[in-house]
Amino acid sequence: MKMFKSDNTSGVHPKIMEAVIKANEGYAHAYGEDDITKRAEDKIREALGCDADVFFVTTGTAANVIGLMGLLRTYEGIVSAETAHINVDECGAMEKFAGNKIIQVPNREGKISIDDIEPLLEVIGDEHSAQPKVISISQTTEMGTLYTVDEIKELADFAHSNNMLLHVDGARIANAVQALGTTLKEMITDTGVDLLSFGGTKNGMMMGEAIVSLNKEFGKGYLFHRKQGMQLVSKMRYISAQFIAYLQDDLWIENAKNANQMGKYLAERLSQQDGVQLYAPVSTNMVFAFMDKGLIEHLARTFKFYVTDPSAGQVRFVTSYDITKEDVDKFVDHIREYNNK
Amino acid sequence: MKMFKSDNTSGVHPKIMEAVIKANEGYAHAYGEDDITKRAEDKIREALGCDADVFFVTTGTAANVIGLMGLLRTYEGIVSAETAHINVDECGAMEKFAGNKIIQVPNREGKISIDDIEPLLEVIGDEHSAQPKVISISQTTEMGTLYTVDEIKELADFAHSNNMLLHVDGARIANAVQALGTTLKEMITDTGVDLLSFGGTKNGMMMGEAIVSLNKEFGKGYLFHRKQGMQLVSKMRYISAQFIAYLQDDLWIENAKNANQMGKYLAERLSQQDGVQLYAPVSTNMVFAFMDKGLIEHLARTFKFYVTDPSAGQVRFVTSYDITKEDVDKFVDHIREYNNK
Amino acid sequence: MKMFKSDNTSGVHPKIMEAVIKANEGYAHAYGEDDITKRAEDKIREALGCDADVFFVTTGTAANVIGLMGLLRTYEGIVSAETAHINVDECGAMEKFAGNKIIQVPNREGKISIDDIEPLLEVIGDEHSAQPKVISISQTTEMGTLYTVDEIKELADFAHSNNMLLHVDGARIANAVQALGTTLKEMITDTGVDLLSFGGTKNGMMMGEAIVSLNKEFGKGYLFHRKQGMQLVSKMRYISAQFIAYLQDDLWIENAKNANQMGKYLAERLSQQDGVQLYAPVSTNMVFAFMDKGLIEHLARTFKFYVTDPSAGQVRFVTSYDITKEDVDKFVDHIREYNNK
Amino acid sequence: MKMFKSDNTSGVHPKIMEAVIKANEGYAHAYGEDDITKRAEDKIREALGCDADVFFVTTGTAANVIGLMGLLRTYEGIVSAETAHINVDECGAMEKFAGNKIIQVPNREGKISIDDIEPLLEVIGDEHSAQPKVISISQTTEMGTLYTVDEIKELADFAHSNNMLLHVDGARIANAVQALGTTLKEMITDTGVDLLSFGGTKNGMMMGEAIVSLNKEFGKGYLFHRKQGMQLVSKMRYISAQFIAYLQDDLWIENAKNANQMGKYLAERLSQQDGVQLYAPVSTNMVFAFMDKGLIEHLARTFKFYVTDPSAGQVRFVTSYDITKEDVDKFVDHIREYNNK
Repeated sequence: MKMFKSDNTSGVHPKIMEAVIKANEGYAHAYGEDDITKRAEDKIREALGCDADVFFVTTGTAANVIGLMGLLRTYEGIVSAETAHINVDECGAMEKFAGNKIIQVPNREGKISIDDIEPLLEVIGDEHSAQPKVISISQTTEMGTLYTVDEIKELADFAHSNNMLLHVDGARIANAVQALGTTLKEMITDTGVDLLSFGGTKNGMMMGEAIVSLNKEFGKGYLFHRKQGMQLVSKMRYISAQFIAYLQDDLWIENAKNANQMGKYLAERLSQQDGVQLYAPVSTNMVFAFMDKGLIEHLARTFKFYVTDPSAGQVRFVTSYDITKEDVDKFVDHIREYNNK
Repeated sequence: MKMFKSDNTSGVHPKIMEAVIKANEGYAHAYGEDDITKRAEDKIREALGCDADVFFVTTGTAANVIGLMGLLRTYEGIVSAETAHINVDECGAMEKFAGNKIIQVPNREGKISIDDIEPLLEVIGDEHSAQPKVISISQTTEMGTLYTVDEIKELADFAHSNNMLLHVDGARIANAVQALGTTLKEMITDTGVDLLSFGGTKNGMMMGEAIVSLNKEFGKGYLFHRKQGMQLVSKMRYISAQFIAYLQDDLWIENAKNANQMGKYLAERLSQQDGVQLYAPVSTNMVFAFMDKGLIEHLARTFKFYVTDPSAGQVRFVTSYDITKEDVDKFVDHIREYNNK
Repeated sequence: MKMFKSDNTSGVHPKIMEAVIKANEGYAHAYGEDDITKRAEDKIREALGCDADVFFVTTGTAANVIGLMGLLRTYEGIVSAETAHINVDECGAMEKFAGNKIIQVPNREGKISIDDIEPLLEVIGDEHSAQPKVISISQTTEMGTLYTVDEIKELADFAHSNNMLLHVDGARIANAVQALGTTLKEMITDTGVDLLSFGGTKNGMMMGEAIVSLNKEFGKGYLFHRKQGMQLVSKMRYISAQFIAYLQDDLWIENAKNANQMGKYLAERLSQQDGVQLYAPVSTNMVFAFMDKGLIEHLARTFKFYVTDPSAGQVRFVTSYDITKEDVDKFVDHIREYNNK
Repeated sequence: MKMFKSDNTSGVHPKIMEAVIKANEGYAHAYGEDDITKRAEDKIREALGCDADVFFVTTGTAANVIGLMGLLRTYEGIVSAETAHINVDECGAMEKFAGNKIIQVPNREGKISIDDIEPLLEVIGDEHSAQPKVISISQTTEMGTLYTVDEIKELADFAHSNNMLLHVDGARIANAVQALGTTLKEMITDTGVDLLSFGGTKNGMMMGEAIVSLNKEFGKGYLFHRKQGMQLVSKMRYISAQFIAYLQDDLWIENAKNANQMGKYLAERLSQQDGVQLYAPVSTNMVFAFMDKGLIEHLARTFKFYVTDPSAGQVRFVTSYDITKEDVDKFVDHIREYNNK
């Protein structure tokens, strides 16, 4: 049965699986020196409209940690929301493997703002404090919210005018690009983002994330950081082939479009049910809500989803690229059934 | 064209690809909580004949580094051959990510012996020296040689009687098990190996290695070490499905059998050619030889292989699971052609 | 001129300097194998009334970081106040050198409570989150406040009943013991503290901190962690001799007594001045206050102190072991003079 | 009784102790912002004849590890002799705290040469190998031998022409400067050394080493690396004062002169005794010899020294700055007494 637990419980899009099968022809150079990998890297550069350095890895945590460590000396810190994936969902990988401190700033529904970052800069030059050097935001945020393109540009400008850099954790970047009706180039390249974790797994790929370094100063080190980071896959063509199919004919945007539409549809339907209050307006494929505990228990018997705050009754639903209206309706029917008892 | 460069230039065995395709049905729990993963772990335990803890990762470097760090405090060292993959082929990942020192011992064609390890133990208790704690051997070694089952048992016994542990880097464990006509249980479980990096990628899988912890004292920490090690793949079923097919009906042994036979066949043919001297007797699918430089250049125009020591004219050929006699013959024909000019 | 900037701006107490001079007789074994070091370690054990393992280091950061890393696997986290020295004043040393995540909890004037820690334990067993393993408190806290002996016992009990440990950063432990009219044994040993950073430098020593491991499970690893932590001083007798003098005839308590009394006297005098509001009741030798900005500027021309929050006009004064009433009066006179202009 | 075990078993030179006592006047800024520290840094710059960046730390291990990590990305390696202190005597601190791999090269009595380093450079650009970036030599070496000034210059030139850097572990740099009749400027600055660990502890100081960065590209990062490296001593004046006295009127050279002379005198006397063969010509204050085991046992009852290779009967004697001819004679008398029995 389809789950609303996370967009990594869904399977691989048929076109992507087809590409993997097709990649299995004959021999190919290992470690990314094959032609498929070169083409996949080009595809990403094309979507960005710039000459970025691209390095494929197998997990989002790896893309974030290896990407960020490439930008930093160990005494430099990463400014992020307390809710950021790098802060709460990676088992301390950043601290252990990069060795850098995460400097938390308050967030509003997952988003951070310049006003909150500015006071942190007082420690610049003081050797007792980790030195703020990278601002890391998630787009889509972990709360399902979005930064506008202008907000990203403001953050990038602020970072650069303070000798800092901007990283975007794009585990769900496709959902953001689609929801805002913009392009990857406008959102990332033109705003001045220095580093992007470009995610594919959550949007219909089997496995594949990319460290995308848009700042040429840091590009060449990643070849080594990735290998040292235990992420140099030998038969890389099977990752790369997925990316080609993913970007071909805007499949990634199509997938995100359905996920986002179903997110909104689910939100709309939920808002009409008793015992359910939406936590925030829904922009993408993540729906946060408060629910009566009895209802949560009832639903949990049949469906899989996260209870993000048990005491407050906060739950999270995520709609994958292949969720249908019927799937949502079936889910909401369960709520109605409970309410009508 | 097929390559003799490494066994990771070959593709995915059809049965394994089939298993990946079949795994793509419906939704599944992420992060290894799915049924396919449970079954794959069981398959490995079955092959070992014991209740080992099994954790899938995507690279051999990750299996080695995360596996070893789980056994160690940071001031403890890993005793290995200078030629070990962990020492020379992982870009310092062990030092960076585990933080442990690799204490090199001399090797004989890739193998280390108790006589060479014993003197290292003099530093036990001296806080100025990293404390030898794990002996790490590669089976098959990086030079294509093998430890006998008895030799592994002796190393394990020596380790345990000195308060140490034994790790086996089994990136090519299948080739070793097949070549020695033994079983995984006899070679690993019954000898007392504490930790095994169980490799599949080099023997017909797409991507898949396993941290196999046979020592229950260390088993439960790996759940966290793997996530912190950036290696917790979300859609794990696609890795796990490969392992099931790999172990089903001894496909892994079949693959290794062909690779080994072709290694020996290649060695036999090479030994008959002018300008070629074998470096060592060939037991598995790795053939090391010295070649005249003119011949190396001639071959390199058509075939891909490693020149492991350019000044000495040392080269390495690896025969993959799907190399045929015809492939070998075609290759040797090139040598003959050169010699007959 | 004497400063109110920090208690490490003051010099070395004459009795301690005398001990250093006296230690300079003849040759002695290096690396802590000398007799003076043995005696100093015993002195600390005596004060604790238990058989703790004691390791001298040269900085408080080292005592904290090396001490804590000895208790932890890398995927385990340290629960502390956001204001903790380990979190904000050690340039990310914990993250870089131990590799452990600091999990911040809210604080009340520098103190944390079980109510704030309890919700963090929900992630136990979830490999996506660093696992809370040590609670670290500062006694005296960075805000000059104190945990009662009972509060420490409650935290230790809570920790132990949740498979956790308790660490006390005692950079100013002497001030706490004196202010509460208790003993080190009652405050640390009898409450069940597992690890203590025992500080001397801020209370009249030249240089000297101790990693004090009260939990025998972890004791022996520190010999190696300290050396690997770059903190094994070769001529250790000159550190150890200081500790002997420091603990002899309760010099450490005498020093703290004066510092604390002068802290209170300074607070009392400040409370009577216009343009000054105390931030919190003063228990030890740290006085936090809000001051008019003109007054801050006036004082800063003559005296050295920290402006902890420039926009809020928050300042910190610390009274060292050898500050006198006259020093305080002179300082307050400056304020009065400014106010009377 | 005086020991020949190491030059860190001797005490503090009276002039240095006097400076420590004198530094204990009044209050001073902490963390190296005091005037004494500024003057001490200047003294070192003066001796070097250049504008180096100078950072005081408390151990030689810290000077090496923190110094080297400041030059490196984690995937870059340090080329050193197998016998180097950083490789065998620092409990894996480099690997753990810097995260960099030490790439061992063969040595001749502790010295490495360009011929041995050159082959290592083949891996440059290959992401599977740690990238050689710094050559680290010890001057005086751990075997008591010396690089000539020309040899250091050749190593520096070789390093720079291969995009590498040169580090000198100068724990016994004074002995080398004195023995070669040169100056620090000629040996270090004029040869192009990038980084120097300038040691004082082994030559009559109480405790004090300096990270000396002669390459301005790396200078400013050390302020933070030192603090993060747990080595920012708060009452730094007591370290700094030692350096001023140490460098004043060439006390450091005077101390080394006596130590070296006594080393040679000891070697000369030993060479005349039965049952003793010198291992190598003696240039400084370290004497290596082979001795009959009975003689070793006899001596060990009265004197302290290292048996560096028990099975070979290799021993090491070190003559401190304040060893006298009488001390040496008394020691040699013990040998003669044994031989005459």
